[in-house]
Amino acid sequence: MSYDRLTASNAAVLFVDHQTGLANGVTTQTPVDFLNNVKALVTIAQIYKLPTVVTTSAHDGPNGPIMPAVEQGLPDATIVHRPGEINAFDNADFAAAVKKTGRKKLLIAGISTEVCLAFASLSAKAEGYDVYAVLDASGTWSKLVEDAAIARMVQAGVVPMTWVGVGAELLHDWRSETGLAHGKLMGDYLPFAGNNTTAFFAAKGQK
Amino acid sequence: MSYDRLTASNAAVLFVDHQTGLANGVTTQTPVDFLNNVKALVTIAQIYKLPTVVTTSAHDGPNGPIMPAVEQGLPDATIVHRPGEINAFDNADFAAAVKKTGRKKLLIAGISTEVCLAFASLSAKAEGYDVYAVLDASGTWSKLVEDAAIARMVQAGVVPMTWVGVGAELLHDWRSETGLAHGKLMGDYLPFAGNNTTAFFAAKGQK
Amino acid sequence: MSYDRLTASNAAVLFVDHQTGLANGVTTQTPVDFLNNVKALVTIAQIYKLPTVVTTSAHDGPNGPIMPAVEQGLPDATIVHRPGEINAFDNADFAAAVKKTGRKKLLIAGISTEVCLAFASLSAKAEGYDVYAVLDASGTWSKLVEDAAIARMVQAGVVPMTWVGVGAELLHDWRSETGLAHGKLMGDYLPFAGNNTTAFFAAKGQK
Amino acid sequence: MSYDRLTASNAAVLFVDHQTGLANGVTTQTPVDFLNNVKALVTIAQIYKLPTVVTTSAHDGPNGPIMPAVEQGLPDATIVHRPGEINAFDNADFAAAVKKTGRKKLLIAGISTEVCLAFASLSAKAEGYDVYAVLDASGTWSKLVEDAAIARMVQAGVVPMTWVGVGAELLHDWRSETGLAHGKLMGDYLPFAGNNTTAFFAAKGQK
Amino acid sequence: MSYDRLTASNAAVLFVDHQTGLANGVTTQTPVDFLNNVKALVTIAQIYKLPTVVTTSAHDGPNGPIMPAVEQGLPDATIVHRPGEINAFDNADFAAAVKKTGRKKLLIAGISTEVCLAFASLSAKAEGYDVYAVLDASGTWSKLVEDAAIARMVQAGVVPMTWVGVGAELLHDWRSETGLAHGKLMGDYLPFAGNNTTAFFAAKGQK
Amino acid sequence: MSYDRLTASNAAVLFVDHQTGLANGVTTQTPVDFLNNVKALVTIAQIYKLPTVVTTSAHDGPNGPIMPAVEQGLPDATIVHRPGEINAFDNADFAAAVKKTGRKKLLIAGISTEVCLAFASLSAKAEGYDVYAVLDASGTWSKLVEDAAIARMVQAGVVPMTWVGVGAELLHDWRSETGLAHGKLMGDYLPFAGNNTTAFFAAKGQK
Amino acid sequence: MSYDRLTASNAAVLFVDHQTGLANGVTTQTPVDFLNNVKALVTIAQIYKLPTVVTTSAHDGPNGPIMPAVEQGLPDATIVHRPGEINAFDNADFAAAVKKTGRKKLLIAGISTEVCLAFASLSAKAEGYDVYAVLDASGTWSKLVEDAAIARMVQAGVVPMTWVGVGAELLHDWRSETGLAHGKLMGDYLPFAGNNTTAFFAAKGQK
Amino acid sequence: MSYDRLTASNAAVLFVDHQTGLANGVTTQTPVDFLNNVKALVTIAQIYKLPTVVTTSAHDGPNGPIMPAVEQGLPDATIVHRPGEINAFDNADFAAAVKKTGRKKLLIAGISTEVCLAFASLSAKAEGYDVYAVLDASGTWSKLVEDAAIARMVQAGVVPMTWVGVGAELLHDWRSETGLAHGKLMGDYLPFAGNNTTAFFAAKGQK
Repeated sequence: MSYDRLTASNAAVLFVDHQTGLANGVTTQTPVDFLNNVKALVTIAQIYKLPTVVTTSAHDGPNGPIMPAVEQGLPDATIVHRPGEINAFDNADFAAAVKKTGRKKLLIAGISTEVCLAFASLSAKAEGYDVYAVLDASGTWSKLVEDAAIARMVQAGVVPMTWVGVGAELLHDWRSETGLAHGKLMGDYLPFAGNNTTAFFAAKGQK
Repeated sequence: MSYDRLTASNAAVLFVDHQTGLANGVTTQTPVDFLNNVKALVTIAQIYKLPTVVTTSAHDGPNGPIMPAVEQGLPDATIVHRPGEINAFDNADFAAAVKKTGRKKLLIAGISTEVCLAFASLSAKAEGYDVYAVLDASGTWSKLVEDAAIARMVQAGVVPMTWVGVGAELLHDWRSETGLAHGKLMGDYLPFAGNNTTAFFAAKGQK
Repeated sequence: MSYDRLTASNAAVLFVDHQTGLANGVTTQTPVDFLNNVKALVTIAQIYKLPTVVTTSAHDGPNGPIMPAVEQGLPDATIVHRPGEINAFDNADFAAAVKKTGRKKLLIAGISTEVCLAFASLSAKAEGYDVYAVLDASGTWSKLVEDAAIARMVQAGVVPMTWVGVGAELLHDWRSETGLAHGKLMGDYLPFAGNNTTAFFAAKGQK
Repeated sequence: MSYDRLTASNAAVLFVDHQTGLANGVTTQTPVDFLNNVKALVTIAQIYKLPTVVTTSAHDGPNGPIMPAVEQGLPDATIVHRPGEINAFDNADFAAAVKKTGRKKLLIAGISTEVCLAFASLSAKAEGYDVYAVLDASGTWSKLVEDAAIARMVQAGVVPMTWVGVGAELLHDWRSETGLAHGKLMGDYLPFAGNNTTAFFAAKGQK
Repeated sequence: MSYDRLTASNAAVLFVDHQTGLANGVTTQTPVDFLNNVKALVTIAQIYKLPTVVTTSAHDGPNGPIMPAVEQGLPDATIVHRPGEINAFDNADFAAAVKKTGRKKLLIAGISTEVCLAFASLSAKAEGYDVYAVLDASGTWSKLVEDAAIARMVQAGVVPMTWVGVGAELLHDWRSETGLAHGKLMGDYLPFAGNNTTAFFAAKGQK
Repeated sequence: MSYDRLTASNAAVLFVDHQTGLANGVTTQTPVDFLNNVKALVTIAQIYKLPTVVTTSAHDGPNGPIMPAVEQGLPDATIVHRPGEINAFDNADFAAAVKKTGRKKLLIAGISTEVCLAFASLSAKAEGYDVYAVLDASGTWSKLVEDAAIARMVQAGVVPMTWVGVGAELLHDWRSETGLAHGKLMGDYLPFAGNNTTAFFAAKGQK
Repeated sequence: MSYDRLTASNAAVLFVDHQTGLANGVTTQTPVDFLNNVKALVTIAQIYKLPTVVTTSAHDGPNGPIMPAVEQGLPDATIVHRPGEINAFDNADFAAAVKKTGRKKLLIAGISTEVCLAFASLSAKAEGYDVYAVLDASGTWSKLVEDAAIARMVQAGVVPMTWVGVGAELLHDWRSETGLAHGKLMGDYLPFAGNNTTAFFAAKGQK
Repeated sequence: MSYDRLTASNAAVLFVDHQTGLANGVTTQTPVDFLNNVKALVTIAQIYKLPTVVTTSAHDGPNGPIMPAVEQGLPDATIVHRPGEINAFDNADFAAAVKKTGRKKLLIAGISTEVCLAFASLSAKAEGYDVYAVLDASGTWSKLVEDAAIARMVQAGVVPMTWVGVGAELLHDWRSETGLAHGKLMGDYLPFAGNNTTAFFAAKGQK
């Protein structure tokens, strides 16, 4: 067994179908928690300058446009609007965009977990990528559906992760140059961390 | 690792013991959610014209007749009433009916998850089929029983799925000829999707 | 203490803001359960020919149009589109429509429970109506919000109810002329009841 | 405020619609817990020789016959099969049977909580009885329905109780003649109590 | 029964002990939901220009400083640091600051629900104020503690509310001058509302 | 409405049947949380030197001896072993011991909530005491039983509380002489408070 | 992959530490559900005449004697009281008793899941037995502990099962000679099944 | 498959980032349960004289100092304060301290489960250690995060455990010299066990 880490130079991020209409169908987290976690992954992509591909399914129909938190948060992302393919890797532009990142390790999030995330993850795995499913920046219609999807992906060798873990593996060391931005990330998206920081500097008289 | 997809020409559906008396024992979903999910899988079988086998256990006793949603929803299904065999594959007629579908991939749902679904899945797997357990069109007596059953099936290589994933893998592309029917399926059995569609066309002034 | 019953001649039903966009915000029930319960109340209004007023808030904006289950299910309802008033009784047309029903007892459902249902209930109570909050045909953003809203309404003397209770009080006796339709209502929206009926007639050999 | 206690000579028990078909619809407790709690109330009625009235709604139809635990457990109960009345007190035979008990305090349990229990409780309260709703020997279709029903009954002055409390108020003192039978009741229907008793006597070397 | 509404000219807001250290003890909501709800109430205070009093308990000790979301969000609030009094109304400066608002209706939120919120609410009620407990901008250590606190406050005549209801009662009509800001409030703190708005304008082609 | 506070000179504490065998039947909290909350109330009784009466039911039988946390934590309490009376106030020695405390306000905790706590609370209320049910230092067999018991007590005018609230009302002001001991109480039984204190002094360099 | 079934002639049952004191520590099911499930496995052992070994850990100390449901339900079981060994297979008498059954497949249940069940299961697996963990006739102190234990056992190749599945695999066919006894088993320990049977025969007029 | 046991001479314990600030972020257990479980693992390390390494991340910042329960409970532990490395094994001093224990089997606990525990576990596994994740002495921000972390570790071959199992495997036999201390451990951190022991000796008259 080896433990091959995520780094800012070996990873890319894929946001699959984070669209307003689909987001309203997510029930596996509270809506506020889910949005918070999506924003956190967006911020990680920015802090670590990870190549990012955002894709949508029928974005000009009822699924709705890209969630503003994703679109506005990732101005440099490659966006691929899929006209009909459900599995993002079935769209040649998307597959090419991913390949073009030159990265071996793919951090994938999607709505929904069992379709957009799982299908892309299984295809990526089959293509030879190392695949990490970012589960809390993903969501679906029921806990049973989410559990089944996670089990299916784990069965296929996909690595289950969540954004704090993804970020921490990328950060590697608090003394690195992203340390400050990473601290802000934690404070912004994990309230207890923000509270701790505020309290700490107040206690030091440095507020 | 390869990712061999479900298609309308490689898959069959098996409904194992969706009988009224057994349905009343399901507690792993709300009764309305469970019925909704069973109907959705029935509709998928119709849309994709999947060969379907429906089987019962002692249907003229306390287990009760086939749930109307299954029986009326699948007028062309092969029905095999098992006089006593618990594992559906122990019944020669059922095994033959499945074989006759000519399909390698079996989508199986059952009441209960740990008996009717798991036993059939393990036997099908042993027979060389690719087996997909459709977990939300299945149900059982407690969460612990369901979790144990899923773990047993996954341990044996059965693929855990749920109906939206099954449908999406079969649909493959929204532009395919089943796209319209598939859209109705989603709207009918995922209320947020129906709401989104209604709202979208109203906003477009096309209601 | 007296127990003054609901009857088909003393009650009216008010649907407050059952709009597609708001329905997607309900998390206090599963989406399928919520839709099921709304449909059941719609059906009760039909069976008992209760005068019904449907009202919306900004229905041509993001809140979306009336949920099809309500609009199509109640073709004879009076519809009042409120241009801005949040409390439905602040809209003179709505208040007049309610008054015009000539009924003393109001069955009110709304999205959300703490705004659309509670505000209308408190105003109706203040106007002298007997108010019954139909809680399962209503919903809101979190359990805490729902609990607070119920406590506020109960504190003000609003009677907390749910659709099966409403229907049963209206039915009064299974031998009444609505008995058959009422039986279908129960079978359609309470799956165990439908299962029981199917099983019973099968056992009797009358299927 | 006064505290007027339940005694073996001032209380009667009413079982409203504990029928097999309705029991299968109860989801507010696990099925095993619910049956256990019904049996416990049956046993209390026996130990304290409380006059008991058992009533059914359409018992020869899909609602099914009286649950065996109730029928066999209460051989001396008055049974009133209601041909159609939903509120048990609307049936003259039932109302007379209750009156004939000569008791002022009514312990009522029913399936479902919001119909069979609540309607009978409200009518009994209106008739001048002291009403105690035995909530764990009752059940219904969802937690929201149960909560609404309890709130409605409490609002009307019905006293919310559960079987252990009912039994304890009747027992009054462990040294009374029913003490031994009551100890067995507790051991049989509260597993920890049975375990404690077994362990105690084993430790004393009296097993 | 009368229904006397909250308005921008009859209400004041009190934030009691929203301090970083105490916020870390809240378990009755997810941390992200709780912070979201506190921010929403802060924003309501701003939109409706409600006089606001913020108070702390031992803010230079382990309880920590005021949560930044409250302090930075309410630059014009009166702040009263209590040196030791637990019930905020026991501090003369706080009681005077509340009185000075000239408002009869008090919207109170606090950490924790059963101490900071409940004590202040009971005292305010005893002083003759109309008291509204904003429960989702408040929190505490366990669900049981929260339920007990709500029951105690309701028993004393405090009105249980949550921020969406508070805001809606203040808004009164979407066509009022605060309508636009209120729409943004809803979109920012209720994700489904933000999604609906984004989707609506996209569908209209006005994005 | 008046708000008459708990003080160290007007309150007494009653522990009703905190026995090892009964404690093992409590399921309404985790066992560790329950023990923690009982210990906290014991500590409050000590800090505020509240007269305390501890009573048991058949302590030399399967119910078991007094929980060590109560017995050892309250060496000066009056202990009344009841030979059979279930309602503690039916035992003359207990009633006399309570009366002898000379206190008007009774803080009562018990196992179980619906019997030992509720019966004593209702009797105390009927006797003219002000009664406060300390719900988290009490427990019972299921959430439904606890909810019913709380509803029954609230209906009768008993005040629902929990230990942090009880302690805070007694403390009144952190600058009082019990402030230091009270701070330790909070740190010992609310882990976040202990963590905050440790972190605060570390940040100040005063560890 | 092969599917080697449980039969009455290849399986033995091991009850590990089903003692009264340990049973009171189980929180992963309701106490009544847990006892019900233990009794069901006991009944299966009897119906299928499976060789059974019951073992205890320090049964004459605080762990308490064998649960009566196990001891009285299995009069012919081999009982091995272990004086100190925690892993039952470390006790030579137990290991010998298991070996003496001559069975290759072991159905193991234990309190607690992560110690008594998991340790015995891992040792049995290492010894070459086919091991089936009967999870609902086992229990432990928290859901997290149970989940971890199941994951550990599954990781080691132990098959996760529950009693209905075990029974159904042994029954194999309802027409076998154990069919009648098996039907009673289902009716006794799965209330919906009992209700269905009662209702069915009533509908047939065969009650 | 072999089952290689934990013993007092082959195991070491690693506490990774049990710091006050991080502890306040744990929501996967109640705060009191979490602290209880951490203390239990600390006590196990002491009873079995296991070499122990305690490490922190930025302990002089907002993460806070070591939890007193860990620091004071393990006076002989090697403490490694990491200046920035997130994965403890990236710190040479920590890696050396672990190596110096000379143990092959590592019991690791951490806050948070998916970062501090999972990263250290994966690295240790890659280094060739046998790794046991002590999940209940670890915690994180949400159940989904914990589930994902457990799945990731199990996928990599880490053994999931909890403290009672760890202790029991180390104890091996109640007659060993640590038996007495182990009994106290159980009584102190599993309340039912303490209750059982107290009750047992009281029943024996040996209290």
